[in-house]
Amino acid sequence: GSHSWESLLPDFPKGPLCKYRKKASFNWKEMAVLLDGKDIIQLKNRIFSALESDPLFVHHPGEELSREKYQELTFLRCKRLFEYDFLTQQEIIENPLKIFHMVLCIGMYDWSPCIQYLLHCAVILNCASYLLEFIINTPDFEAAKFWIGNMGKHATHAVVYAQLYTPDGQYQGLHSFLVQIRDIKTLLPIPGVVVGDIGKKIGQNGLDNGFAMFHNVRIPKENILNIAGDVTAEGKYSSSVKDVKERFSAALGSLSSGRTVITAVSMTNLKLALSIAIRFSAVRCQFGPTDDEEIPVLEYQTQQWRLLPYLAATYALDYFCKSLFENLTEFYLGLLTKQRSQRQADIGREIHALCAASKPLTSWTAQQAAQECREACGGHGYLAMNRLGEIRNDNDPNCTYEGDNNVLLQQTSNYLMSWMHCIRVPFESPFGTINVLQDYHHILDWKFTAMSVEDCMDSSVPLAAYKWLVCYLLRESDLKLSKEKQSGRSDFEAKNNCQVYYCRSLAIAFIEQTVLQRYHDYTHDPDIPSTLQPVLKNLSALYGLWSLSKHLAVLYQGGYASGEQAGRFIQNAILELCYRLKDDAVALVDVFAPPDFILNSPIGKANGELYKNIWGEVLQGSKTLNRPSWWTEFCINRPVAGRLKSKL
Amino acid sequence: GSHSWESLLPDFPKGPLCKYRKKASFNWKEMAVLLDGKDIIQLKNRIFSALESDPLFVHHPGEELSREKYQELTFLRCKRLFEYDFLTQQEIIENPLKIFHMVLCIGMYDWSPCIQYLLHCAVILNCASYLLEFIINTPDFEAAKFWIGNMGKHATHAVVYAQLYTPDGQYQGLHSFLVQIRDIKTLLPIPGVVVGDIGKKIGQNGLDNGFAMFHNVRIPKENILNIAGDVTAEGKYSSSVKDVKERFSAALGSLSSGRTVITAVSMTNLKLALSIAIRFSAVRCQFGPTDDEEIPVLEYQTQQWRLLPYLAATYALDYFCKSLFENLTEFYLGLLTKQRSQRQADIGREIHALCAASKPLTSWTAQQAAQECREACGGHGYLAMNRLGEIRNDNDPNCTYEGDNNVLLQQTSNYLMSWMHCIRVPFESPFGTINVLQDYHHILDWKFTAMSVEDCMDSSVPLAAYKWLVCYLLRESDLKLSKEKQSGRSDFEAKNNCQVYYCRSLAIAFIEQTVLQRYHDYTHDPDIPSTLQPVLKNLSALYGLWSLSKHLAVLYQGGYASGEQAGRFIQNAILELCYRLKDDAVALVDVFAPPDFILNSPIGKANGELYKNIWGEVLQGSKTLNRPSWWTEFCINRPVAGRLKSKL
Repeated sequence: GSHSWESLLPDFPKGPLCKYRKKASFNWKEMAVLLDGKDIIQLKNRIFSALESDPLFVHHPGEELSREKYQELTFLRCKRLFEYDFLTQQEIIENPLKIFHMVLCIGMYDWSPCIQYLLHCAVILNCASYLLEFIINTPDFEAAKFWIGNMGKHATHAVVYAQLYTPDGQYQGLHSFLVQIRDIKTLLPIPGVVVGDIGKKIGQNGLDNGFAMFHNVRIPKENILNIAGDVTAEGKYSSSVKDVKERFSAALGSLSSGRTVITAVSMTNLKLALSIAIRFSAVRCQFGPTDDEEIPVLEYQTQQWRLLPYLAATYALDYFCKSLFENLTEFYLGLLTKQRSQRQADIGREIHALCAASKPLTSWTAQQAAQECREACGGHGYLAMNRLGEIRNDNDPNCTYEGDNNVLLQQTSNYLMSWMHCIRVPFESPFGTINVLQDYHHILDWKFTAMSVEDCMDSSVPLAAYKWLVCYLLRESDLKLSKEKQSGRSDFEAKNNCQVYYCRSLAIAFIEQTVLQRYHDYTHDPDIPSTLQPVLKNLSALYGLWSLSKHLAVLYQGGYASGEQAGRFIQNAILELCYRLKDDAVALVDVFAPPDFILNSPIGKANGELYKNIWGEVLQGSKTLNRPSWWTEFCINRPVAGRLKSKL
Repeated sequence: GSHSWESLLPDFPKGPLCKYRKKASFNWKEMAVLLDGKDIIQLKNRIFSALESDPLFVHHPGEELSREKYQELTFLRCKRLFEYDFLTQQEIIENPLKIFHMVLCIGMYDWSPCIQYLLHCAVILNCASYLLEFIINTPDFEAAKFWIGNMGKHATHAVVYAQLYTPDGQYQGLHSFLVQIRDIKTLLPIPGVVVGDIGKKIGQNGLDNGFAMFHNVRIPKENILNIAGDVTAEGKYSSSVKDVKERFSAALGSLSSGRTVITAVSMTNLKLALSIAIRFSAVRCQFGPTDDEEIPVLEYQTQQWRLLPYLAATYALDYFCKSLFENLTEFYLGLLTKQRSQRQADIGREIHALCAASKPLTSWTAQQAAQECREACGGHGYLAMNRLGEIRNDNDPNCTYEGDNNVLLQQTSNYLMSWMHCIRVPFESPFGTINVLQDYHHILDWKFTAMSVEDCMDSSVPLAAYKWLVCYLLRESDLKLSKEKQSGRSDFEAKNNCQVYYCRSLAIAFIEQTVLQRYHDYTHDPDIPSTLQPVLKNLSALYGLWSLSKHLAVLYQGGYASGEQAGRFIQNAILELCYRLKDDAVALVDVFAPPDFILNSPIGKANGELYKNIWGEVLQGSKTLNRPSWWTEFCINRPVAGRLKSKL
């Protein structure tokens, strides 16, 4: 091709995957350039090749790393990442989205050094300086802080949230302080500090998580972190953010950045898992129409239905993550420029509501996808070398940290419920995500109107259904809450009783609708090249219908759908879209799969040489063909089979 | 109490779990005796205390075991299990169910030695003897056998399935041979054999799985295994099972035993995961009606709804596993006594259809439960020491080995579809599981008739709905298949196009209906003591409604349910049952939880001293409080924070 993107994106090696690559309806390089832009592709290439050329990042197939060694390696890799300094200040200012891409590229290699790196950056970002002296204490074992990243082994300072009492005895609420916990030369704990490692986790073991307890540890006054409030040299409390509401909005924003990152981390895990499972499915053959001919498992309806909706989800969520990051950038820009407007406060609330639901949606989707991909690859998926176990184990904490998913969803439903009182007046939110409620009463009368499968093949159909679903669940949740309160329950009890099937479903439906709305708008934009638009529209429709199908019972229950056909249309449209996308699946994965070195999965390699790749890796194991070191014990201790045998 | 079970089942230590234990509606010891019987409880006690007292089975908290060391330990433990010889021949004959309990008790400690032990037993069971000589070859790398248990490091002989050609050039089909692969004194491979370790897996790493390839290896004629056929001294093929159908039935039976074991293994994983998550939820407090008072997370509707249906599933599936084992025993008894009846053949087919669906149902339920339990325990669930990761990782292969779950479900739907032609004549199957189809036409006219939530609180309601569901999905699948064939598709294509939303859903609905039918009958038996019946009926209703709720869309779609109320009744009944069961949950777990030593999870300990247990374990780690071994590198290589800081 004569396009300039040719040099940016090298061709894949010839091999068994060519069959599907040739069948693709579009050029994967054109798609990559559309989605990321040349600038970002260059950045990715730069990062990926830096890691691949660096001996510190080399893989050791078949080698077992102890946790201590893995932590050491992670520390050294993290340090190297600081040295690489992938982005200049100018680049960040021109395109803050580059930070987002940089972090995810590193994470594709391994989340442990990536998160260690992020944690170091976060601490650095929060530094501040002051005068007086404080004393900090941990009342008991239960109050000890557990899980702090980097603290298990090597952090020298920690940001500690503590109840602040000023010398006049006044309680000033929760504040953060910078506390030294280890000597920076010896790494031994500072007197009065008990600090240690919390032990092995299910995943992310390169990261050392720790615990800390304090016994009468003095903290220099300058170490209070002045995000929202300080204490003056005279021991008086002052806050640069005067308005409690604004202070709250600022705090929400800082929570939102963590949740945005986790949303993106989870979406990246989707990319990794799908790259592996789809390439595997395209070359792994099993059974066939005759005894002689075996066909790729991707040709089976069940395999398509298990994997392709997650592929569509990956595309929709990738787009959503970028848009969310842009929303967050707007919010931070307002903070930095000290915006005091109502709009800035509204943005804080809206972004909080979005992240509090996008994190659960994306982390759960990735967790389920990792499990489905691992099963879809059968025994090969269960081999550690193929990385699906690592992806699942590393993704797992995304479901519970920075707020448990189920608890977070309440933040979003609370936000939505708070709009119920404005339902009769015109209103809009800064990012427009709740504007659907403007037509609340009207939408509640909508019905499912598609008359054929073909009618359902566009994402406008599930999108309309989602709008009804959000309004319906909002009404039901609101009614349920009123009923609970009327029956004399406390606010606490009433809310508790409205979660399952009501508020929880509402928050999930809302975020799915938002993701779909944005992706629908994007894929239907007339500026999308006509060469790419059909496949993007298919992805949008499949994501929408498949997500919606999990709410099908509610659509019937609430009267939006009725009769046997409605459900059948949706189901058949899902299967038809899976079928239409199967020949594009490998190319769709080629668009986002990182280079083989980064993906690090023999069954996910771009050459598709399944068995050669597996055997190559198996035989790399230094002891693969050796008898066990304990072979002499075997001869002395062989199981006494005779006894059992004689019995049977 | 003066009951004789008091001495069998010691009281639990006093502690924070007492609050819930006191609130339970029944005596957990009475329940344990009802479910298992004293004889089995004694067997369990014997096995559990043997393991606890044996230095070879001691736990090493905080210690990291290399894979090689873990495999060695597993081998020694497996060998010790043979020495323990927990069951006498007499005991096995009197109650074959004891084998089942013995295996699961060992598995509760660790699946690796348990499965190694089972594999050794299986090989021993298959021995046979004959004369001529054969030569075995593996054509290429792709044909190499991968995954063979025990073969990675220590197996000396393997059962190999190979295409048998007799000297007259006749192809005789697939046969099994006993092949020596390693020297029994040196553990070095036999010439012509390439045998090795396949590498690390996601779980079950104590078990050494291997691969093997053969190059012109001679096998003594006596090593053909005569389960279904032999070759005579003159090189002629002969089979003791003359009838092809019978031979097929015998082969199906041997597949069924593996799938029955996996069903039981998965059910046991449910017990382990629920024991940990429910005890944790009963003592872990978070938030509360006021700022001062925190309540156990088990009091939250969401937490109840996340966990208690899995608790109900554990009880229903536990009962089902025992009944399935009895079915299998009847089948094997027929084989051993050389039954040639139609009934014996029918049993073979029916048990095959049951296992091919119970294995997917139970392994998936356990996989989802392990994930839900891990998330429900938050960060504590993510700590490796609390074992939920291990349970999930060890359960994982149950979803794909001995037949991938999705593929296996086709066996069951094929069986059900095969009954369509008899639908107009009276028929029954030996275990009665398809007798529901006798009323097929009648049942298709049924409707959901409950008029209130209270109406739905018995498992008869979901059971009736399930009967309709099975008939409806059978009809729809049959229609769909006919349509596909009529449109000119080959049998292969037509079947492929009928899986998702049709045959696959049919097989799942069928097995859920069967599990529920058996559990409903059991819990409604007038012989159940009145002290235990209410809670058992609640479990049956919850399991039935919760499983059914996943098919709610189909109930509406097919016209069984209509209107808003039907779905609401089911949903509200699920929540009400969760609420009613929450005070019984700890006692229900006490019934099946193994002793602390076996459960091996600080947050799952019977004393409920959450923080003491965790800290006790954390501080056992030999290097918990040490600075890292690589501390000097830290001082040389500390991340150059300044550069980034200056930029921001």
